[in-house]
Amino acid sequence: MSSEIYLSQSVGHPRVFETRMRVRYAETDRMGVVYHSNYLVWMEVGRVELLRELGFDYKRMEEDQDIGIAVVEARLRYKAPARYDDEIRVQTQVKHVRGVVVQFGYVMLRASDGLLLAEGETTHIAVNARLEKRNLPDDVAAALRACMGTVRET
Amino acid sequence: MSSEIYLSQSVGHPRVFETRMRVRYAETDRMGVVYHSNYLVWMEVGRVELLRELGFDYKRMEEDQDIGIAVVEARLRYKAPARYDDEIRVQTQVKHVRGVVVQFGYVMLRASDGLLLAEGETTHIAVNARLEKRNLPDDVAAALRACMGTVRET
Amino acid sequence: MSSEIYLSQSVGHPRVFETRMRVRYAETDRMGVVYHSNYLVWMEVGRVELLRELGFDYKRMEEDQDIGIAVVEARLRYKAPARYDDEIRVQTQVKHVRGVVVQFGYVMLRASDGLLLAEGETTHIAVNARLEKRNLPDDVAAALRACMGTVRET
Amino acid sequence: MSSEIYLSQSVGHPRVFETRMRVRYAETDRMGVVYHSNYLVWMEVGRVELLRELGFDYKRMEEDQDIGIAVVEARLRYKAPARYDDEIRVQTQVKHVRGVVVQFGYVMLRASDGLLLAEGETTHIAVNARLEKRNLPDDVAAALRACMGTVRET
Repeated sequence: MSSEIYLSQSVGHPRVFETRMRVRYAETDRMGVVYHSNYLVWMEVGRVELLRELGFDYKRMEEDQDIGIAVVEARLRYKAPARYDDEIRVQTQVKHVRGVVVQFGYVMLRASDGLLLAEGETTHIAVNARLEKRNLPDDVAAALRACMGTVRET
Repeated sequence: MSSEIYLSQSVGHPRVFETRMRVRYAETDRMGVVYHSNYLVWMEVGRVELLRELGFDYKRMEEDQDIGIAVVEARLRYKAPARYDDEIRVQTQVKHVRGVVVQFGYVMLRASDGLLLAEGETTHIAVNARLEKRNLPDDVAAALRACMGTVRET
Repeated sequence: MSSEIYLSQSVGHPRVFETRMRVRYAETDRMGVVYHSNYLVWMEVGRVELLRELGFDYKRMEEDQDIGIAVVEARLRYKAPARYDDEIRVQTQVKHVRGVVVQFGYVMLRASDGLLLAEGETTHIAVNARLEKRNLPDDVAAALRACMGTVRET
Repeated sequence: MSSEIYLSQSVGHPRVFETRMRVRYAETDRMGVVYHSNYLVWMEVGRVELLRELGFDYKRMEEDQDIGIAVVEARLRYKAPARYDDEIRVQTQVKHVRGVVVQFGYVMLRASDGLLLAEGETTHIAVNARLEKRNLPDDVAAALRACMGTVRET
């Protein structure tokens, strides 16, 4: 691999993971659109599927390693309403990993035409079942860091 | 037990416990009415408040006595739609208590005019945190039985 | 169509439609299992997918034909707890169709081993957007009737 | 208007509106705490109750005036976990009102001891039922502006 390619990797794009789901009737509200809190549920599905694609089973992390990632901050920007029965593409990427902190970014699109529905970020702290801070397992942290597009240390 | 006490027990009406809540926007769906699964949530609020009025704290039952009441059966009959911002009266009563089994009945009314919205029943099994059957604590079972209006054994 | 085939249809088994979904973290409760009201949401997904496989788009039925199917009764029997990240098979079948009434039956299984999690039924009334009773469209009623395994009229 | 009153207005604190609710079992997750999306539902309850205390019925705004306030942005910072059966105090205030935009701020506290659970903001656009931008009704806008603590125009 040439150094140029290497360099282009080091400033490369973050890996984007995608999962899909269909809007349920229960997720709509009387305005006829998806109630805004449901996007946080979809974002959680997105990050669990990201972990699964990286080879990590979040359920087992909690049960076997006593490590969960509690949400400490969430931001959402709603761009267009999702509606009943729409198929949604949730694109998830790792924004930041350091020590006990992980940050994910999300873009939610309508599958039929790619319309941007919402985007957001969540910040997490790795914790045990008693909600005490713990470092992420090394292999999880390394795999998450490898998904980020920008090199932090050079 | 004297016959007078016996008679007063045998003809007693069941005690009805009432709690109120207001329909949240998140509970509505695109038909403009409350999505039907939310009534199960209200019924749960109803039976926890029934226990609280009887002097039992369901949270402490789970945490200190390792006893919960898992739902094993639920029935609902929807009579009229509840709508956003309606105040709801949830009337709960004990229908049956024996061994590990408890059954509750529910009537849900629109507070503004008493319109019957829905009625239902849930059947529960007392379990510990590993979901193994356990008898209800004696004081809880006795208090629940005392709420039933009709004498079961004569 | 030969009378033999006709006969074999008339005593045939009901058609069973299956859809799958994965348990979301948001659907669990502090007992560590799926909160019981979520099964009603899965059952709704099951019947919408049944309609889709029959060639009907429930969203368009509501929007273009002004016909929805409002839930008037629901029953659930919980057999074993579903847990976080379990893949769920929802099997749906038509139990009854007549005039404005449709009834569906559901079996929910854990995909990994076929464990029976819950079963239930819902009864519906066809309504317009003002929740007034309306007959099901003829083609929908005929398609639903064709899914039932037992012949009603001979 | 006297200068004293003017001064007291110009340095006034924003009005804080408070409403209370109790954590439902359905709102918890298998970590034993409230699932993070539910805070958005509580914040919505907070702003509807704020409007009600100001004399406005949000349901009637939607139905009679064809004005709703769609969420376009939300931020949440989770400080301590809320748990089952906790009583929650939701404190809501108006942060900003201009044209079609309204912003609310929220603080959520555990009622038993005042522990800070979470804080957040939501930004809204006034829309009609077709989700087209519309100005807030003048009386609503004026009442919301009067709740802000800092004078905007001098």
